[in-house]
Amino acid sequence: MNRIEVLAPEGVPEVRPGADLVDLVLPLVELVDGDVLVVTSKVVSKAEGRVVGGTRDEALPGETVRVVARRGGTTIVRNRLGLTMAAAGIDNSNVPAGSVALLPLDPDASARGIRAGVRARTGRNVAVVVTDTAGRAWREGQTDIAIGAAGLVVAQEYAGRTDAHGNELAVTLPAVADEIAGAADLAQGKLAGRPFAVVRGRADLVLPPGQDGPGAAALVRSEGGDLFGYGAREAVVRALRGDPADRAPFGAPAEEAELAAAVRDVLGLVASRSARDGGSLVVTVPRGLVRPLQALAFAHGWEDVATDSPSDVRLRPVRP
Amino acid sequence: MNRIEVLAPEGVPEVRPGADLVDLVLPLVELVDGDVLVVTSKVVSKAEGRVVGGTRDEALPGETVRVVARRGGTTIVRNRLGLTMAAAGIDNSNVPAGSVALLPLDPDASARGIRAGVRARTGRNVAVVVTDTAGRAWREGQTDIAIGAAGLVVAQEYAGRTDAHGNELAVTLPAVADEIAGAADLAQGKLAGRPFAVVRGRADLVLPPGQDGPGAAALVRSEGGDLFGYGAREAVVRALRGDPADRAPFGAPAEEAELAAAVRDVLGLVASRSARDGGSLVVTVPRGLVRPLQALAFAHGWEDVATDSPSDVRLRPVRP
Repeated sequence: MNRIEVLAPEGVPEVRPGADLVDLVLPLVELVDGDVLVVTSKVVSKAEGRVVGGTRDEALPGETVRVVARRGGTTIVRNRLGLTMAAAGIDNSNVPAGSVALLPLDPDASARGIRAGVRARTGRNVAVVVTDTAGRAWREGQTDIAIGAAGLVVAQEYAGRTDAHGNELAVTLPAVADEIAGAADLAQGKLAGRPFAVVRGRADLVLPPGQDGPGAAALVRSEGGDLFGYGAREAVVRALRGDPADRAPFGAPAEEAELAAAVRDVLGLVASRSARDGGSLVVTVPRGLVRPLQALAFAHGWEDVATDSPSDVRLRPVRP
Repeated sequence: MNRIEVLAPEGVPEVRPGADLVDLVLPLVELVDGDVLVVTSKVVSKAEGRVVGGTRDEALPGETVRVVARRGGTTIVRNRLGLTMAAAGIDNSNVPAGSVALLPLDPDASARGIRAGVRARTGRNVAVVVTDTAGRAWREGQTDIAIGAAGLVVAQEYAGRTDAHGNELAVTLPAVADEIAGAADLAQGKLAGRPFAVVRGRADLVLPPGQDGPGAAALVRSEGGDLFGYGAREAVVRALRGDPADRAPFGAPAEEAELAAAVRDVLGLVASRSARDGGSLVVTVPRGLVRPLQALAFAHGWEDVATDSPSDVRLRPVRP
């Protein structure tokens, strides 16, 4: 029988700025080597003085790198940490009325500090995960995810391993840090005053002392590395506007053949290969289709460059 | 101390078509009232005869409702169950070479059957979750999620409750079924032959006998109910193409003011309100901007209707 235990101690006092979280948790639960200590970002923010006066809307610009999608009262943004979240992860629950909790400045560093503190005071080698609650693109509700980690294998690599049938597991990469965060939330709850949890039984994921690993930052897809850098509606707005500052979320330039196929299928135009500019596509375009062609190119990571002919558009992949 | 336990028994034999999963699991772990029994969709598919010869590419069309995004070798689709997943959730691991496992036809029904079977044979009231492994829009790696559930509160409603500071938790809705699925995966692993797990310690989420609840289907955002119905690149392609069959993923029509603002900001055009058609927008458009305006309207859930004037475009919200 494989067994995992999740323990969430009660009796944690209100966390004040400057509080030492290791001091708070050690009297409440006995840690052993190989434990994963899970801490909500809320108390990390409180200890680090990241609770500020004001509303979510007031705090939002300072935490936002760019807006991903907006609908009704909801604004989904990519935040300072690269996390795509409603309201940038700014939270107004479990903080004094009239204030909000900003996410920790560097949750991986916060996790490293807690891991080092536990090691220094107890000699135990535990991994640390800092969690936050996040929505998902296609699913209702939220789950807790790892926004900080230290001493943990955050994603378990199966690539190259084979199953009992001899099939290679090419893309299997369980984001175990996120599953640990969710498991901890099951024991913590949202209103029970249990900001700490210990996940016991996956010591195989805990790195040796002195190794902190890549942190939870490794679970964030890079800018342009996902396919959903804009909501569907925003993508159309941005591509038609064509502001070069909005390019990155569309990702790396598409293959020439993919763009040529889109030009043909969507606009009914022929894109011809040209050797100029180190490889470009030339499209003879009736005037009414210049803007649509430009938008299509923009969404594919291509740009138009000046030509002598008023009816020809020359496209080339954007160089990073 | 709040405690949750996750137990994953070893010694599960290879599951064959027609196998009774309740028969398989009962000798391996003693269930108690309030347990959540977690079963991977892989063994449910095997028991239900959903392993078929062929490749993922060959099986994909039959499982796909529509393509959400494509990049390189990856195709992300919305599948029969409403799940947005790479390759529709078709899996070629832990099945004989040359075959693939399709997801169960109705995983909520599968979960109900297992719940009823446990009840009938042991008298125990357990909830059941059927899991699958899914990627995320903005995060690396995968986590297990609930694709079927019976007898479980799948999302814990906090709306209307207040925290210790008196703040109301307006949008807090932990998708506990997904967190349970992830916790189970931590104990199951991908290659260890542990397709069952028991999550113990959240009996508060288990419904009384005879109540199966809404199932995991309740965690799927409805078509058009999310903001990421297409990848960013695909959204631009679909909006420029303007095929009415592609409308739904863009969601309900935007407010008139939002569309008017986009028309002004993106195209520099003035949209005037008209009383015709029960409320419409009229835009006087130079010829080069007709297609861009149509694409913008399409992405906002509006359509253009015929006018007498060649330079006027009349837009109205699409009626469902």
